[in-house]
Amino acid sequence: MPSPLRLGIAGLGTVGVGVVRIVQRQAALLSARTGREIVISAVSARSKDKDRGVRLSEYAWEDDPVALAKRDDVDVFVEVMGGSDGAAKDATEAAIAAGKHVVSANKALLAMHGQALAEAAEAKGVAIRYEAAVAGGIPCIKALSEGLAGNEISRVMGVMNGTCNYILTRMQDAGLDYQTVFAECEELGYLEADPTLDVGGIDAGHKLALLVSLAFGTQVNYDALQIEGIEKITIEDIQQAADMGYRIKLLGVAQRSGRGVEARMSPCLVPAASPLGQLEGPMNMIVLEGDSVGQIVLRGAGAGEGPTASAVLGDICDLARGAMQPVFGVPAGDLAPSERAKSATPAAYYLRMELADKPGALAKIAAVLGDAGVSIDRMRQYGHDAATAPVLIVTHRAAQEALETAIAAMESTGVLASAPVALRIEDI
Amino acid sequence: MPSPLRLGIAGLGTVGVGVVRIVQRQAALLSARTGREIVISAVSARSKDKDRGVRLSEYAWEDDPVALAKRDDVDVFVEVMGGSDGAAKDATEAAIAAGKHVVSANKALLAMHGQALAEAAEAKGVAIRYEAAVAGGIPCIKALSEGLAGNEISRVMGVMNGTCNYILTRMQDAGLDYQTVFAECEELGYLEADPTLDVGGIDAGHKLALLVSLAFGTQVNYDALQIEGIEKITIEDIQQAADMGYRIKLLGVAQRSGRGVEARMSPCLVPAASPLGQLEGPMNMIVLEGDSVGQIVLRGAGAGEGPTASAVLGDICDLARGAMQPVFGVPAGDLAPSERAKSATPAAYYLRMELADKPGALAKIAAVLGDAGVSIDRMRQYGHDAATAPVLIVTHRAAQEALETAIAAMESTGVLASAPVALRIEDI
Repeated sequence: MPSPLRLGIAGLGTVGVGVVRIVQRQAALLSARTGREIVISAVSARSKDKDRGVRLSEYAWEDDPVALAKRDDVDVFVEVMGGSDGAAKDATEAAIAAGKHVVSANKALLAMHGQALAEAAEAKGVAIRYEAAVAGGIPCIKALSEGLAGNEISRVMGVMNGTCNYILTRMQDAGLDYQTVFAECEELGYLEADPTLDVGGIDAGHKLALLVSLAFGTQVNYDALQIEGIEKITIEDIQQAADMGYRIKLLGVAQRSGRGVEARMSPCLVPAASPLGQLEGPMNMIVLEGDSVGQIVLRGAGAGEGPTASAVLGDICDLARGAMQPVFGVPAGDLAPSERAKSATPAAYYLRMELADKPGALAKIAAVLGDAGVSIDRMRQYGHDAATAPVLIVTHRAAQEALETAIAAMESTGVLASAPVALRIEDI
Repeated sequence: MPSPLRLGIAGLGTVGVGVVRIVQRQAALLSARTGREIVISAVSARSKDKDRGVRLSEYAWEDDPVALAKRDDVDVFVEVMGGSDGAAKDATEAAIAAGKHVVSANKALLAMHGQALAEAAEAKGVAIRYEAAVAGGIPCIKALSEGLAGNEISRVMGVMNGTCNYILTRMQDAGLDYQTVFAECEELGYLEADPTLDVGGIDAGHKLALLVSLAFGTQVNYDALQIEGIEKITIEDIQQAADMGYRIKLLGVAQRSGRGVEARMSPCLVPAASPLGQLEGPMNMIVLEGDSVGQIVLRGAGAGEGPTASAVLGDICDLARGAMQPVFGVPAGDLAPSERAKSATPAAYYLRMELADKPGALAKIAAVLGDAGVSIDRMRQYGHDAATAPVLIVTHRAAQEALETAIAAMESTGVLASAPVALRIEDI
């Protein structure tokens, strides 16, 4: 049997501890499957003394993850610290410079610095693998970059933040408003320390940025994405959408259009009967569409100790077996620059707004939409209080720009009581 | 760039032509992704002159797939002929003996001769890859053997024959009986030349046999599976199941129990609201459960030119990148013998039977179930003609053996007008 594959694990939070547990519990299985022993040489975290409920005494300890990354007895640097900059970045760079492979669960780091890291890794002949960075335990990076390698990818979609999916489905199931469910989530510890990362779509956007690069052969560029969170979604939106046979999901969509690769992470309406529409609770789902394979749907837990550690171990096993490939599917130098593409794929839109209850208000809104070239499929004004009238409009397929023009014009009509909510109805 | 990877394709049916088309259409993409040109050296099929709608003149032609397998200008033998013996087996063996890697879509061959072929391949240091043999375009072999390599797999389930799923969902949607939908499928060309391969569960069983081996580290052994087809499922069963919130699926289930690995391919009831229950039409779904990852669900087209060829190309790309691993996850010599395990996992059962309309008939059936230790959850006798009374029973969880004892005893009560239908209600 070849020499053991030696891990240095930076970060002993939920995921890091999960990785340690699997390496300890499944040692025999891992070596049977990879032909090598997989061992931990050293670990690093903020506090050495904290009881993490797992045996660590046999491993060397490093206070500094950079020192860990450089250790001679480490072949693979496992980065499960998190954070787009600072120690995680320094240590990952140090590992690459020292000729170590990197297995990372850090979507933020890769979304912000993926291109530079990939160039550095490929120059050194080492791998960066990041299955755990996207959709937890779902092996979607592998499916996209390996299983579907014979396909030209036409579209990638997904629900990539389980907390947002939990919030939206909980609102629907319990008829609760956003603020109430958000408070529940805070209490349950479901949210990131900065909850905007979750509900603002940023965490999910980081994941989408990685999928876009792999799917379309472009440089990772988080800034090229359109990002919108779920903060403005009301229980009314959810119920109105349900009445029309839809569900609201924080959905990532990336597709190639005549104007480049367009990629959005935003709340969308999807058919209630579709796999995405049926996804309940804190789950993730990735939808991959290729010219040969058609549509593949992958579903699983998007977070948590076990699922995320499972993904880390999948990458480690691949490295143990000697698998090597470019970080983003093709050599980093061949990745096309990634610009923000204005959405070129038309869609139907759901619009909800409050109108001042004045004569002619609805007519003004309709006129503004018509002027922008957005035609109306359905429109209704429903039960309202004295001062304002809630209005719901579903448009026919329209370009995003036309819709934005219409919304800007609505705002100068003087009949809006509040900013309209506009949600794309995604064809799936 | 390293030397091209040269393919010899044996079989130019739907899948073989699909592979040729992808290699031609996506040449640039394939070489960007793998770092090597992927080229076809030679092809083989029964009739050289048949117009297959694809350019073949630039490739060498072999009438004999064995000759193709041995060619010096072939690195990878692509076996898309089918058949568990004969030419496919001879050619695969010849390819291995000649030191060629094998990419196969042939589930029957691998299910019947997988162990011997794996031993031969590993002795020669070549790979056998077979993503296309299971669930068409869904990269489930990869997910199981690589993505989930850090998991002890507890259960594998799936709908693996799209035609059967089409038949069952079409029966339900249109309220048609089995014979009518079967005849429709024959007319549409959906069935294998020997339709028993589809509706008898044999084709799906071959696929399950491969998944079992990979999941549980056992030698491939089709004969260790319990196989039951969908021929006895009536529209009445489907409607009764639907009334109780279930769908009937031809479901493969393999799980480790105290008595070994039990594996069944049989019609089962699954909750209508589950991903498996929601799978409509000619689709496949694979459910993988591991100790760390929890449950992963993979869905896609299980057959057809594009999806199956996509899976073949995924394997070819892996070989082009130099990926190597044992055929069934661990070295063939380390695979445990695979014996047929009597089902040890209890389940609730759905029973439907016709009773002779005599006093005391129902009581006799109830007594027989009680004597076998099978307790009844629900029982009802419903609308019936003069001579016989249809009876529906849902049991509490019972061992398969207890149920079989009860059914055998029922048959000697003299009150059955026909053999009972017994379907497992699978927990998912």
